[in-house]
Amino acid sequence: MSQMWFEIQEQPQVLKNCLEKNQNTLISLAQVLKEREINHVIIAARGTSDHAAIYAKYLIEIKMGIPVTLAAPSVFTLYNKTLLFNNSLVIGISQSGKAADVLEVIRAAKVQGMPTLSVTNDEASPLAQEAQFHLYCAAGVEKSVAATKTFTSQIYLLAQLVALWSGDEAFKAELARVPALITQIIENADQVKNKVERYRFMNECFVLARGINYAIALEGALKIQETTYVRAKAYATSDFHHGPFAMVDDHMPVVIFAPQGPSLKDIHEMIQKLKNAGADLLIVSNDAETLAMGNCSLEIPSEVNDFISPFVNVVTAQIFACNLAKLRGLNPDAPRGLSKVTITR
Amino acid sequence: MSQMWFEIQEQPQVLKNCLEKNQNTLISLAQVLKEREINHVIIAARGTSDHAAIYAKYLIEIKMGIPVTLAAPSVFTLYNKTLLFNNSLVIGISQSGKAADVLEVIRAAKVQGMPTLSVTNDEASPLAQEAQFHLYCAAGVEKSVAATKTFTSQIYLLAQLVALWSGDEAFKAELARVPALITQIIENADQVKNKVERYRFMNECFVLARGINYAIALEGALKIQETTYVRAKAYATSDFHHGPFAMVDDHMPVVIFAPQGPSLKDIHEMIQKLKNAGADLLIVSNDAETLAMGNCSLEIPSEVNDFISPFVNVVTAQIFACNLAKLRGLNPDAPRGLSKVTITR
Repeated sequence: MSQMWFEIQEQPQVLKNCLEKNQNTLISLAQVLKEREINHVIIAARGTSDHAAIYAKYLIEIKMGIPVTLAAPSVFTLYNKTLLFNNSLVIGISQSGKAADVLEVIRAAKVQGMPTLSVTNDEASPLAQEAQFHLYCAAGVEKSVAATKTFTSQIYLLAQLVALWSGDEAFKAELARVPALITQIIENADQVKNKVERYRFMNECFVLARGINYAIALEGALKIQETTYVRAKAYATSDFHHGPFAMVDDHMPVVIFAPQGPSLKDIHEMIQKLKNAGADLLIVSNDAETLAMGNCSLEIPSEVNDFISPFVNVVTAQIFACNLAKLRGLNPDAPRGLSKVTITR
Repeated sequence: MSQMWFEIQEQPQVLKNCLEKNQNTLISLAQVLKEREINHVIIAARGTSDHAAIYAKYLIEIKMGIPVTLAAPSVFTLYNKTLLFNNSLVIGISQSGKAADVLEVIRAAKVQGMPTLSVTNDEASPLAQEAQFHLYCAAGVEKSVAATKTFTSQIYLLAQLVALWSGDEAFKAELARVPALITQIIENADQVKNKVERYRFMNECFVLARGINYAIALEGALKIQETTYVRAKAYATSDFHHGPFAMVDDHMPVVIFAPQGPSLKDIHEMIQKLKNAGADLLIVSNDAETLAMGNCSLEIPSEVNDFISPFVNVVTAQIFACNLAKLRGLNPDAPRGLSKVTITR
């Protein structure tokens, strides 16, 4: 059994753990953010952690109307400049807590007296030590290079923070159901496993979504890239219209995350356009009509709403990537050319 | 002759025109931004215009330290929410001026009394009419679906705004030389044309850069996608280390923008890593040592610095894409599946 599959299965327990471990930090951080009337958030992150940042951006902007800037760390490291952080919460996300460029952003924010938050899976890491607040993923060691449980714990902690900060009790209740929903996906992993065979010889694919699941299109594509070397490219459907659509050939595999919710109408238009162009569609959805539009489809639980659908969608993508790697005789735990800790400056 | 090639050649004159036409608007807008002590910028855009937004983000952050948020228009359109625009300049960029989602962002900003700016190539368009300030690309009708002259005029106008707003006279002087530098690239187009043959049967490629040229990696990849259907995917080199690198096969074509400047050291590391993995490198640079590292290389003028290198890099990419399309028997002016005006909501 691969480490990746083992770690995928740990996720429901990891989410419960991390919430318990960080309860006090979450409460006191939310209190500080309210007291200081924070009206801007800046997030620095790379790779999988950057996808967690994008999920957080949509969540904070939609739930709270607070603009979220994704930092370009090179501004700090290559160009030796800093940003004027007016009244901002500055967040650094890094599984290892060792991302040197993310650390620079947190340091610059501290100099200016801004509240800083790090989200890492290592309490002793430089990033965990440097930031005023630290959310600890408590995921245990992640041995697979392809991050799974550290990603879901990052987005779970950030979502819990938004629920407390915004005082959205309904969202908090929805989040409480996430571990059980992920368990459903894992128990139903054969659904995915049985359909992977179809993609044995796939060389490339597009991964599409819109709205909050754009983050999951990016993360799903990255899992496929890392574990199977398939050239997977993610786009928001809205951007896909603007140029990239020209790349769609007959039989081009396209994965589409299409949960019930505000993005579904837009996704339906894209599905129709892709079908007309001859694309081969793998649809991940909890809407019967939408699932029927796919050449292949993967069902997610019906009770999932748009804001928590990223959790079940990403676990579905993880299981897909892990099984496709195995089928192709690859070891998903140790992709060529990659190392677990990447310290970009 | 394709429209695209015709429009590529118009660019030096278009840049001179657009500066002249917008001189007064630029001066009065810069004045307003200083008086109102604007400390945050929010930009909404799609496709090529989004790449102009990314160039502007780096420029504003590096030259002025003012954080730039790239808006997720779906927050406004799909989720029916608005952002709290505290003391922000809100910019909408759209070649046609008809992007419905970008228009929503501008409208929301106006309701909150924020200064708004649109950058379009149609003075009568909804976006031009709606925003308080309008920068007019004055590029003439762009017939090719693949945008060229509207992109360079967008980034030229935004760069001119930054020069005035920040009072950076040296940058203003550098920008004055851009039309002549683009003329050099166009006059030397045979350099590119003669090397395109090598890529006749390319199916896919990566396009990499770091820092401010990340915007040009994205735009260069988009030009290749639209006109040749080659699966081109852009990454910042810093992100490429985090996962996507696993996709690099032996002989994988990789285009790298590597101008002299702060990103060069980092780019050298990536070049070495790619060479070790057997990739086939096309290097665009004005550094002799770096050019020599490529399996193929394209030289840009030596006097170009990091901030204005995007202009010559993108024109080089346009010429590359246009000639490769022609070689492959495709019409770069009318890509399959695309239309010139895309009104995403």
